[in-house]
Amino acid sequence: MNKNWIITPLVVNLIRIIKKSVNIELGLNKKIRRAYGIDEIALVPGERTLDYELTDASFTIGNIRREVPIIASAMDSVVDVNTAVELSNLGALGVINMEGIQTRYKNPEDILSQIASVGKSEFVPLMQKVYREPVKEELILQRINEVKEMGGLAALSGTPQAAIKFRETLNNSEIDLFFLQGTVVSTEHLGMDGKESLNIRDLCESMEVPVIAGNCVTYNVAMRLMKAGVSGLMVGIGPGAACTSRGVLGIGIPQATAISDCSLARDDFFKEIGRYIPIIGDGGIVTGGDICKCLACGADAVMIGSPIAKSSSAPGKGFHWGMATPSPILPRGTRIEVGSTGSLERIIKGPAVLDDGTHNLLGAIRTSMSTLGVKNIKEMQNVEIVIAPSLLTEGKVYQKAQQLGMGK
Amino acid sequence: MNKNWIITPLVVNLIRIIKKSVNIELGLNKKIRRAYGIDEIALVPGERTLDYELTDASFTIGNIRREVPIIASAMDSVVDVNTAVELSNLGALGVINMEGIQTRYKNPEDILSQIASVGKSEFVPLMQKVYREPVKEELILQRINEVKEMGGLAALSGTPQAAIKFRETLNNSEIDLFFLQGTVVSTEHLGMDGKESLNIRDLCESMEVPVIAGNCVTYNVAMRLMKAGVSGLMVGIGPGAACTSRGVLGIGIPQATAISDCSLARDDFFKEIGRYIPIIGDGGIVTGGDICKCLACGADAVMIGSPIAKSSSAPGKGFHWGMATPSPILPRGTRIEVGSTGSLERIIKGPAVLDDGTHNLLGAIRTSMSTLGVKNIKEMQNVEIVIAPSLLTEGKVYQKAQQLGMGK
Amino acid sequence: MNKNWIITPLVVNLIRIIKKSVNIELGLNKKIRRAYGIDEIALVPGERTLDYELTDASFTIGNIRREVPIIASAMDSVVDVNTAVELSNLGALGVINMEGIQTRYKNPEDILSQIASVGKSEFVPLMQKVYREPVKEELILQRINEVKEMGGLAALSGTPQAAIKFRETLNNSEIDLFFLQGTVVSTEHLGMDGKESLNIRDLCESMEVPVIAGNCVTYNVAMRLMKAGVSGLMVGIGPGAACTSRGVLGIGIPQATAISDCSLARDDFFKEIGRYIPIIGDGGIVTGGDICKCLACGADAVMIGSPIAKSSSAPGKGFHWGMATPSPILPRGTRIEVGSTGSLERIIKGPAVLDDGTHNLLGAIRTSMSTLGVKNIKEMQNVEIVIAPSLLTEGKVYQKAQQLGMGK
Amino acid sequence: MNKNWIITPLVVNLIRIIKKSVNIELGLNKKIRRAYGIDEIALVPGERTLDYELTDASFTIGNIRREVPIIASAMDSVVDVNTAVELSNLGALGVINMEGIQTRYKNPEDILSQIASVGKSEFVPLMQKVYREPVKEELILQRINEVKEMGGLAALSGTPQAAIKFRETLNNSEIDLFFLQGTVVSTEHLGMDGKESLNIRDLCESMEVPVIAGNCVTYNVAMRLMKAGVSGLMVGIGPGAACTSRGVLGIGIPQATAISDCSLARDDFFKEIGRYIPIIGDGGIVTGGDICKCLACGADAVMIGSPIAKSSSAPGKGFHWGMATPSPILPRGTRIEVGSTGSLERIIKGPAVLDDGTHNLLGAIRTSMSTLGVKNIKEMQNVEIVIAPSLLTEGKVYQKAQQLGMGK
Repeated sequence: MNKNWIITPLVVNLIRIIKKSVNIELGLNKKIRRAYGIDEIALVPGERTLDYELTDASFTIGNIRREVPIIASAMDSVVDVNTAVELSNLGALGVINMEGIQTRYKNPEDILSQIASVGKSEFVPLMQKVYREPVKEELILQRINEVKEMGGLAALSGTPQAAIKFRETLNNSEIDLFFLQGTVVSTEHLGMDGKESLNIRDLCESMEVPVIAGNCVTYNVAMRLMKAGVSGLMVGIGPGAACTSRGVLGIGIPQATAISDCSLARDDFFKEIGRYIPIIGDGGIVTGGDICKCLACGADAVMIGSPIAKSSSAPGKGFHWGMATPSPILPRGTRIEVGSTGSLERIIKGPAVLDDGTHNLLGAIRTSMSTLGVKNIKEMQNVEIVIAPSLLTEGKVYQKAQQLGMGK
Repeated sequence: MNKNWIITPLVVNLIRIIKKSVNIELGLNKKIRRAYGIDEIALVPGERTLDYELTDASFTIGNIRREVPIIASAMDSVVDVNTAVELSNLGALGVINMEGIQTRYKNPEDILSQIASVGKSEFVPLMQKVYREPVKEELILQRINEVKEMGGLAALSGTPQAAIKFRETLNNSEIDLFFLQGTVVSTEHLGMDGKESLNIRDLCESMEVPVIAGNCVTYNVAMRLMKAGVSGLMVGIGPGAACTSRGVLGIGIPQATAISDCSLARDDFFKEIGRYIPIIGDGGIVTGGDICKCLACGADAVMIGSPIAKSSSAPGKGFHWGMATPSPILPRGTRIEVGSTGSLERIIKGPAVLDDGTHNLLGAIRTSMSTLGVKNIKEMQNVEIVIAPSLLTEGKVYQKAQQLGMGK
Repeated sequence: MNKNWIITPLVVNLIRIIKKSVNIELGLNKKIRRAYGIDEIALVPGERTLDYELTDASFTIGNIRREVPIIASAMDSVVDVNTAVELSNLGALGVINMEGIQTRYKNPEDILSQIASVGKSEFVPLMQKVYREPVKEELILQRINEVKEMGGLAALSGTPQAAIKFRETLNNSEIDLFFLQGTVVSTEHLGMDGKESLNIRDLCESMEVPVIAGNCVTYNVAMRLMKAGVSGLMVGIGPGAACTSRGVLGIGIPQATAISDCSLARDDFFKEIGRYIPIIGDGGIVTGGDICKCLACGADAVMIGSPIAKSSSAPGKGFHWGMATPSPILPRGTRIEVGSTGSLERIIKGPAVLDDGTHNLLGAIRTSMSTLGVKNIKEMQNVEIVIAPSLLTEGKVYQKAQQLGMGK
Repeated sequence: MNKNWIITPLVVNLIRIIKKSVNIELGLNKKIRRAYGIDEIALVPGERTLDYELTDASFTIGNIRREVPIIASAMDSVVDVNTAVELSNLGALGVINMEGIQTRYKNPEDILSQIASVGKSEFVPLMQKVYREPVKEELILQRINEVKEMGGLAALSGTPQAAIKFRETLNNSEIDLFFLQGTVVSTEHLGMDGKESLNIRDLCESMEVPVIAGNCVTYNVAMRLMKAGVSGLMVGIGPGAACTSRGVLGIGIPQATAISDCSLARDDFFKEIGRYIPIIGDGGIVTGGDICKCLACGADAVMIGSPIAKSSSAPGKGFHWGMATPSPILPRGTRIEVGSTGSLERIIKGPAVLDDGTHNLLGAIRTSMSTLGVKNIKEMQNVEIVIAPSLLTEGKVYQKAQQLGMGK
């Protein structure tokens, strides 16, 4: 690798930072920036439309091409062996949580049933108890084998600590993709003396499969992770339905801005190095419209949890809960009841029987592309966006209240 | 037609695009624009007021003058033969859906009753079944004849595909106006090889009645449609009460900005060519106040669905549902219960017995004009507007909750 | 009066218009201005505080000094003879609706009881029926006499039409102040040929009592009304609790901006002519905090309806409804249940037994002045204001819902 | 003390005022500033992360170092002798209200039980009655002694009037810190002739313990209080859960801006004088995320009420009410039911069994610091912030309504 490119991006970074509109006065001691969420934007049709059949929503990650730009989150309520296989067959991808119930318990069904049936106040203690059971190397291998035997793509997700611990196991398996995932992943971690500090470059080099890393939200971290050798980037901190990071830690950046920033890093990196690293918008995505907006902000694909947890085959049995691994001292995910609204096929490829944007996600993406006159994800990233807050006005609350039967 | 004018508008377009305030940083890779909805604006009284009797709210479309600047949407829950005639007699206009229940079924009453009575979960499947019945040429002609025999104006609406298919039928009928309508209409459509691609100019030329087209939301598409020969433009994508385009596709542009942009295209076109093409604000309009705001943004008239669906003679029987024709794979309209609040006459011309702005819409428009001191729609388009968000504050929710009987 | 001053304000007006920040692009055809409501602002304490006893909240209108800068609205649910007298004794002022129930019916009690007892759907028709009874000259005189005999200030309110019609009656009475009030009052009214057009200057000159006029919302109209000879200005269109002008007509301007604009007209007029015309903020004022904000925006006093309708002696009997006189064809006021929370004295002067800012309004004003370190209303008009929207966030709805007992 | 430094800050002040972005037109007569609340911001991760064990959240106030940057508010529902001791032991601090129930009643338990059991309408009158009992010197001393005997830190809070009255008592006690607290504290108070006016400099000099003063919200007042000799500053007016100052008086400034402004005063003062005065964010803080945001805005610690009132040992018994001392004529605090969600230890140091950010506040702060890559509070004050309003959108209300069981 030519060392010259390292200097150039640094200059680019500097320019990016200067270019950022950090022009709002929070108070006398700080100027800050406005960031936007996907609820605040909408897409604008242009002068051209396109036949649905001409649209192509595929993307490529770690040399694997997928017809559907949707990755199901590595959450215990979302993906198990069966859904991973089913998602592969549908042209999408499902990631199994390497530190979850599937790899801690030989028979996870009982545990999943318990989680779905306890009351609200017993949820956190149950979760803390369930996750005290250690992760087992043989179960990791077993889950990978099960997926591969059924013809699916084996994608697993783990924290940096787990990645180091189980690296050898994974390298000896048939795994296709590894997702290195923490609330926030940095390229510079300060640890206690004597403690092994994570070097993402080393990890990428020592793993025999492509490593997709995240989550990150800024240009600089995205750039550094790409330089460290990752094959994909998960973007998004805070916005997920079952994620309470913003309430607990105050941390989060609205998704539209995060994707926009990181996708510029991707483009700059591609111009310099010639390697195209896909950006995966992750968190807060509920409907087909949300996915379309993430793509228009610059994402190549999305990672979604709650929309998949609603499928009749999801392991969550109508429930969805956050955080791959709950902290024993500061749990941050919460459990929400999402219900079961249809088969995984109906959710991914339709036909829809719900009109709220949660069925036939691929159809929604391609219909949006057709309406916006774009042929592929690359063109989708360039459609015009407007700030169009769907803010709640008095009138709308009134309407809503009446629809909910609270009216006069 | 002089070909010279084609160059000039191109330059004009360029200027418009430069003039647009695309000055908000969504993120590092995109600068975007703020767009406004009608809930975010209000009209400002000037120095003059006017007698109610001096106000004139009429407008002209396709050489047909209407006293009331209101067009009822081509939706199955809104317009049938009887309401079309009644609306004509009241000085307004009603458009029949050429691809709806009226032209698929000889006796649509049973179907309409079924739609009004099924439960929420059965609605989408029922609709998909109902619309599998093909549209019949003889029913199109029969509905036109029924309207004409009763002395009404015969206005029908169809998708581009239907317009091509039934062009001959319509040309051999007594139809007065044709509304060419899709979620988004473009002037440049890319189709599969060998498939007939829509040329709006050809269609306008081959139709023997004035063609009103839409929906569009931008200056450039509006300008191109006018150049293609349309006699009116429907403006609005996304904001309708029964429309879920924004949720499903991510597409939409707030109505005030869309009308403002397209009405400039109308004015520029008029300056160049001398033909005045009315702009019809379509979507999200609930009250008289909403209509007044659309006119002040630059519209010549409005197209409304749910306010007309509330009339006792509406075919929806107290229900309203979106989308002229539901997609079998990705339905986007939803059904809402709107109730029946009074006769069509009471809704259009009063007297009102409701105080929420949904009765006596013409009276509201003319009272607003009188209060604002403007004589006609043209002057109404120039009144001062302010950004005045009726945002929901904490106090208002409290009040509202108490009014709804949820209090302490 | 020297004619020279007429030219100067015209120049001033021009400058004001240029000075206005009409810098937001609504769309390509319109630049507009952001206006602010009192819910969006808050007052900032300075470097000085003051003893409560040193504060003086008095103001003067038509040479009548009032200790309390509060005028009760001329609404049938708010002021009758008894409340007018009680308000006078408390140092405030109450205005009787000259075209309301008190002057149409000798014994208004029955009518008021009916209004308080009918169901929601019967309200508008009842109101339209009640107001078909004509206004009676002798009842106008009787109400004035009753107030005067009990030692109160006799203030009445009427529309321009009624002012012309009953001018002689009023001139022959002991009335103290006349409030000329319409939704919007202009200085230039275009009427039908042969119809008497209102000339406010003539009206002011021919009335033997000071005329307070409104409502207006702009610098120019305020300036013209002052030039026409009014002794006070009511400012505010749209924001009232029982007013639906914005929904029905689309008209309204947020109160903070309206007061700010009109109070500059007052200051400019005072500089030129030497006459100080008080500005009365009218509409949307619910709490003591709201009053304080109106004063800080530039008002000299406020006119309030619903807070007074909550008093146990209010004629509305726990209800409040809008519009002095309902239109037979386009009614715009609505009826809301406000309850009876305490005596008029408790509401105006305390002591408060509610902690939500609706009791002891004078105490709230003076405590705010004391906290902000200002001695009188004139200084109060100069305190620092910040934009501080009390917008509803997700967390707050949650809290609120739990407080309302809707929680899990 | 060198008098020279007094001139320099005046110049600095002038520059600050000029630097403030007072650039929004409220109306023609006023330009104002936008202020931000903590609900409108979020923290942005940088390029570095840190081991949890490397973080240090301690701060120092009046030479007393505390491991936890949390001070429990001097409210009767929050701190009594037992909780003050427990908080000291946990590394935090609890302030006893010197004019509250603990110092008016020898046996406060009965009174606290009554407050927790009365209905909503009886609350204000009960409070007014309860606080008519005078504060007793011997009880002040007794509470201080009780805390000291159990090994806690004795911190008390009083109004300026009480501070003057009980100065000698306090100087003869073992008190550690004194909090001088009013809704708004100014350095220049205008009193009636002959009435003793508060001189904060004299008070600080005559008190034998460090004096922490507030509340203030502006650069200039903060600077003057520091010059007067205070050892800490409470920042925040209006935002508290049980505080209704904004509704009653119209006064308040969003917390993020207030902390930012005052922390610049702290830094400027430190540069000039070399004394570091901690800034304590006070009001409106509910979760760990809120605390993290206050620190990032520039605070050194926070003062919290309702989160502590939720502990099983809080004197409020599941209730929380505002204002140290209710006004007999204009009460401003309100009572809210907060419930009892866990032990004080669980709330301060965990482990959490709730996932909403209200348990393990220290863990939340340190996890946030670890994620943001900062070692201590000083570094935390420099993390990047974005404007990221968690505004309520239509979709979110719908979700929320469904979660609350109000769904279809």
